[in-house]
Amino acid sequence: MHRIFEISTSGPGLYEITRDVAGWVEGEGVLTLFVRHTSCSLVIQENADPEVQTDLAAFFERLVPPSDDASMSYLTHTYEGPDDMPAHIKAALLPTSLQIPVVEGRMMLGTWQGIYLFEHRRRPHRRLVVAMLR
Amino acid sequence: MHRIFEISTSGPGLYEITRDVAGWVEGEGVLTLFVRHTSCSLVIQENADPEVQTDLAAFFERLVPPSDDASMSYLTHTYEGPDDMPAHIKAALLPTSLQIPVVEGRMMLGTWQGIYLFEHRRRPHRRLVVAMLR
Amino acid sequence: MHRIFEISTSGPGLYEITRDVAGWVEGEGVLTLFVRHTSCSLVIQENADPEVQTDLAAFFERLVPPSDDASMSYLTHTYEGPDDMPAHIKAALLPTSLQIPVVEGRMMLGTWQGIYLFEHRRRPHRRLVVAMLR
Repeated sequence: MHRIFEISTSGPGLYEITRDVAGWVEGEGVLTLFVRHTSCSLVIQENADPEVQTDLAAFFERLVPPSDDASMSYLTHTYEGPDDMPAHIKAALLPTSLQIPVVEGRMMLGTWQGIYLFEHRRRPHRRLVVAMLR
Repeated sequence: MHRIFEISTSGPGLYEITRDVAGWVEGEGVLTLFVRHTSCSLVIQENADPEVQTDLAAFFERLVPPSDDASMSYLTHTYEGPDDMPAHIKAALLPTSLQIPVVEGRMMLGTWQGIYLFEHRRRPHRRLVVAMLR
Repeated sequence: MHRIFEISTSGPGLYEITRDVAGWVEGEGVLTLFVRHTSCSLVIQENADPEVQTDLAAFFERLVPPSDDASMSYLTHTYEGPDDMPAHIKAALLPTSLQIPVVEGRMMLGTWQGIYLFEHRRRPHRRLVVAMLR
């Protein structure tokens, strides 16, 4: 049982997909979510205060600045734009896939856990997430 | 086949759970461990020298200082304490779930690999880890 | 269905294993790759421009310098060499396991996604990766 979710993004930040995924799972097993890209990520994060998501994006922007920042002058893969190589680095630091146990048709998420696509590129993108339940 | 492990924590650092998990697995499959919180993590790390665990926690404390540190003044989600938003950031940087192949009733861990809950909050917490074997 | 892949490494950097893994998978399920070590990692990264891999390794070398670097003087686990504790830190920051959905005998990787072992130690190593398809 698998399905592909499409998420349209319009710049860096977190896009919640918890509801879409919750509506699809059933039965019992482990849900795997897998993003088919190397410049965005999947994360499980607090779903209560939106400031958590803003702060998260701000932290990663500081940890991995754009490649036209002086501190990143050692980077060589820069021809796809100043946000490209940093996006690959963030994609290494953050998950490409998530695994969530499912019991009686429901994901075993904690009360404050939401599922997010974390976009690292500035331009709009159409992102594909493969879901598989086994 | 699933089970929930409870771990009591008393401040930041690594808490080993290898033995508890090893005593529960059986047969063959992939073990998923999933932590139902956004301010702690699960990691696989060296189990030989306890200094590795101390050094790990020290590195992450420096990489993500408390929000009352001057370098973190851009953070906005600060009303739950100076260790709260940094805990969410560490929870994004480190795994929320682990997957370990199981063969003939044993996890395929390497000789030096142990399983740890990595607590990021200062106050005592009771943490829930869902284990599922498929 | 499981198998162990052996990868010989000769210093820090990314070693591609996509083709070996692709030749082994079949049918449908979720592929788990698990590395049995605490000083190397598994990552999914861009497979087009080799400079991405060089830049990735360069970023992590700066984020986690050798323990004989002045900025790392707080580390205590140093007797296995200046690249040892940083390797454990990188192994916490980067995945120990990967999960990839498999449909009709093929991994659902995106066009630009390759699978890599990321070696963090300087001396040559023989690395074991357990593959399991469920």
